[in-house]
Amino acid sequence: MNPDLQTIVDTLTGLVGDAGIRTDSDALARYGSDWTRFITPNPCAVVLPANTGEVQQIVRQANLLGFSLVPSGGRTGLSGGAVAATGEVVIAFDRMNRILDFNPVDRQVVCEAGVVTGRLQEYAVEQGLYYPVNFASAGSSQIGGNAATNAGGIKVIRYGLTRNWVKGIKVVTGKGDLLDCNRGLTKNATGYDFRHLFVGSEGTLGLIVEVTIELTTPPRDPTVLLLGLKDLDAAMPVLQQFRRKLQLNAFEFFSEKALAHVLEEKKLQRPFESVCDFYALLEFDNDGGQTLDIAMAEFEAGMEAGWILDGTMSQSGSQAATLWRLREDISETISRFTPYKNDIAVKVSRVPELLREVDAVVAEKYPDFEIIWFGHIGDGNVHLNILKPAGLSVDAFYHRCGTVSEGVFDIVKRLGGSISAEHGVGLLKKPFLPYSRDPLEIEYMRALKKVFDPGNVLNPGKIFDSVGELRPGFPR
Amino acid sequence: MNPDLQTIVDTLTGLVGDAGIRTDSDALARYGSDWTRFITPNPCAVVLPANTGEVQQIVRQANLLGFSLVPSGGRTGLSGGAVAATGEVVIAFDRMNRILDFNPVDRQVVCEAGVVTGRLQEYAVEQGLYYPVNFASAGSSQIGGNAATNAGGIKVIRYGLTRNWVKGIKVVTGKGDLLDCNRGLTKNATGYDFRHLFVGSEGTLGLIVEVTIELTTPPRDPTVLLLGLKDLDAAMPVLQQFRRKLQLNAFEFFSEKALAHVLEEKKLQRPFESVCDFYALLEFDNDGGQTLDIAMAEFEAGMEAGWILDGTMSQSGSQAATLWRLREDISETISRFTPYKNDIAVKVSRVPELLREVDAVVAEKYPDFEIIWFGHIGDGNVHLNILKPAGLSVDAFYHRCGTVSEGVFDIVKRLGGSISAEHGVGLLKKPFLPYSRDPLEIEYMRALKKVFDPGNVLNPGKIFDSVGELRPGFPR
Repeated sequence: MNPDLQTIVDTLTGLVGDAGIRTDSDALARYGSDWTRFITPNPCAVVLPANTGEVQQIVRQANLLGFSLVPSGGRTGLSGGAVAATGEVVIAFDRMNRILDFNPVDRQVVCEAGVVTGRLQEYAVEQGLYYPVNFASAGSSQIGGNAATNAGGIKVIRYGLTRNWVKGIKVVTGKGDLLDCNRGLTKNATGYDFRHLFVGSEGTLGLIVEVTIELTTPPRDPTVLLLGLKDLDAAMPVLQQFRRKLQLNAFEFFSEKALAHVLEEKKLQRPFESVCDFYALLEFDNDGGQTLDIAMAEFEAGMEAGWILDGTMSQSGSQAATLWRLREDISETISRFTPYKNDIAVKVSRVPELLREVDAVVAEKYPDFEIIWFGHIGDGNVHLNILKPAGLSVDAFYHRCGTVSEGVFDIVKRLGGSISAEHGVGLLKKPFLPYSRDPLEIEYMRALKKVFDPGNVLNPGKIFDSVGELRPGFPR
Repeated sequence: MNPDLQTIVDTLTGLVGDAGIRTDSDALARYGSDWTRFITPNPCAVVLPANTGEVQQIVRQANLLGFSLVPSGGRTGLSGGAVAATGEVVIAFDRMNRILDFNPVDRQVVCEAGVVTGRLQEYAVEQGLYYPVNFASAGSSQIGGNAATNAGGIKVIRYGLTRNWVKGIKVVTGKGDLLDCNRGLTKNATGYDFRHLFVGSEGTLGLIVEVTIELTTPPRDPTVLLLGLKDLDAAMPVLQQFRRKLQLNAFEFFSEKALAHVLEEKKLQRPFESVCDFYALLEFDNDGGQTLDIAMAEFEAGMEAGWILDGTMSQSGSQAATLWRLREDISETISRFTPYKNDIAVKVSRVPELLREVDAVVAEKYPDFEIIWFGHIGDGNVHLNILKPAGLSVDAFYHRCGTVSEGVFDIVKRLGGSISAEHGVGLLKKPFLPYSRDPLEIEYMRALKKVFDPGNVLNPGKIFDSVGELRPGFPR
């Protein structure tokens, strides 16, 4: 179906020059995959445009010559959204990595898509400000990819997701049109807000080339409280209790199994003597007023109620950072077990029900699997990680986990939840999308895809299958 | 073009019963208009469905019989978005006004579309929580209309617009399909977020039948500081100065002319002796710690710098409320002058430039017009109100103001701003939409309209003209 590779490469080279094209096997393997390891990358070429005009030209050539484009940011995704497995051209934004503008009154930074998230965070600090969206892969991920996937992470309970900070976005649609959406305005009631349609669309509607990000006031002395919980159920009353009195920046949780892996791998000390089944990590700003007293009082109340078994509070920024590592290093630590990740969410009120039911299903059907629970329980999002037993092949393991997923997703569906809280759908979750989205909604998604990318050149086959006609009766 | 009126009325009566249909002239005049007064209402009937199923049936009949529907909430709009002037059927949500559910852990309220905003605010207080979106018309407006127009108001600088609080939305599309979007989840990365497409679409893509709203922690002792400013330019350094140190809930401004009207009409006292050209109203939470000291120090620094000429700080909730009236009563007070309202926004950093240039244009071309400036300067949104001179007819006044608008919108366009910050486009701003949105963007809007409302039965002619084919080359 693809045209002659040489024609594609020659055409692209003509557009971007030799420095902007790669066809060596190293580049193909690297740019063709993300942090998932279940799909073999197989792009035909990698193109690295230097500016928006080149991106438009590349998209127009994709339509003319009939090749597909897989957009690539930092490739830290966990759902295969940036995987090129079927001979596509990868379009990577590494060369479009400049911070273009900053205005201290508006507190807005204009970034090219390829700006690394960590660089943006540092830049904010240099301006005396703060970019609050943070997650384990921030050192590699790019802001364009963050917007395309509406990245969330560990501070969502206070600061929301990437979407909240995107004040403007420039996008090249599948037709090669450049849309300049919202231009940094706080208030703009002039018709449909396309910005929010592109955020989270995983590169299927347009290629994000520029993002205007709002920064905020830095937190004041962020203080961490690490709690040992009596059991899983204790997490909810503890959350409610602390949230009534304090503005929480984060409310994370993880299991003893997760902690044990991190302590061993990273050679860290236990935070306190008690070994508990589950831990909660809270962060709040110490405003110099009553917050520490409030936190201590709630801690004691939680001990008295029997929900909290032990705990420790950071006394300095470096102590806070050390406690955070116990949570943040989990993902990297368990990566050597080729974990099968489920990233699911329900309303906060339904989290205990979700965890209990999922635990039961996995324990019954797969007693040989080690389960690592952790996540952002304060926003209803938990990560279920299944570790691959040493003796099992990746393929066999992946196959068996797929069966687990169906059981898990049945529960998620019944509880009105999401089968992908923040990792996106990509390729890995595509078969399960109907567990969270009505078939009618998916049909409308396909119709929107046809509006913005009628040639189906942008990340085809991600989220849903976009080839073929809309089903009969649509539009009625 | 419309079918026989009797057929429509009979069909609708069959769907909703006698209690759900009105054709008397009072009802037609009332339900056919909003707070704009420039367009004569002329609907053919008013239908008041009692539930979502009836809404779906009505939309299907609209497609079958070929009549148009104008959705109607509290009809407090200022752009004619809810005006039915060309024989449409008004679909009003007054009977769908129940609060359906509340969960204290999730802090979410499920509202039918017709719940009055003020009722939702009260309900939040009854739960020990807070709904932070507030504006002058909150006593009449409905939550469905708020979502359809992404209502903003006076606390946006801290809490954002309606969009931020919509965690779920149920919508009946122009095809009669019911979409249940996001279902109250905080994190849900499962494809396109339709929620944000319907929010702000002014009823042109779907009829909002239910909204799930998140509530938040109530403010702590909101304290108001009213400042007399040296001039317009002083507003910006004062904003920056206070925002560096305090989390502001609001930063509003108004002119002496606006204040004088309110003092006269409402028989209120001047807040302090000095008569200044412009005033700023700040609100922040007094957390019992250092905030009052910080505010006083910034006030004194502003006096010393010469930006602030005088000021007063509320000592109690009732004093705060009295100071707020000086700002909040402006709109109602000047309504007897049939004001021509422009609701424009730029980035905050460009507000002084905007005000200066607009002032110059209006003063030069229309020296006989009285201009009332007020607005939400902290988010870049200012309201330019031109009062009708007593001797001028409404028609002649409106015509002349239209000419003013073009001059104003030229400036807005040059500064990259919005010709409608929060009032929406409706009918009144439709001719001016290209000042804020690229023709290509409008073309994509029309294409989306065709996806969700192929029969063009929902609020046709609002925002943009939706009849006719998409222009050649689209889709390319």
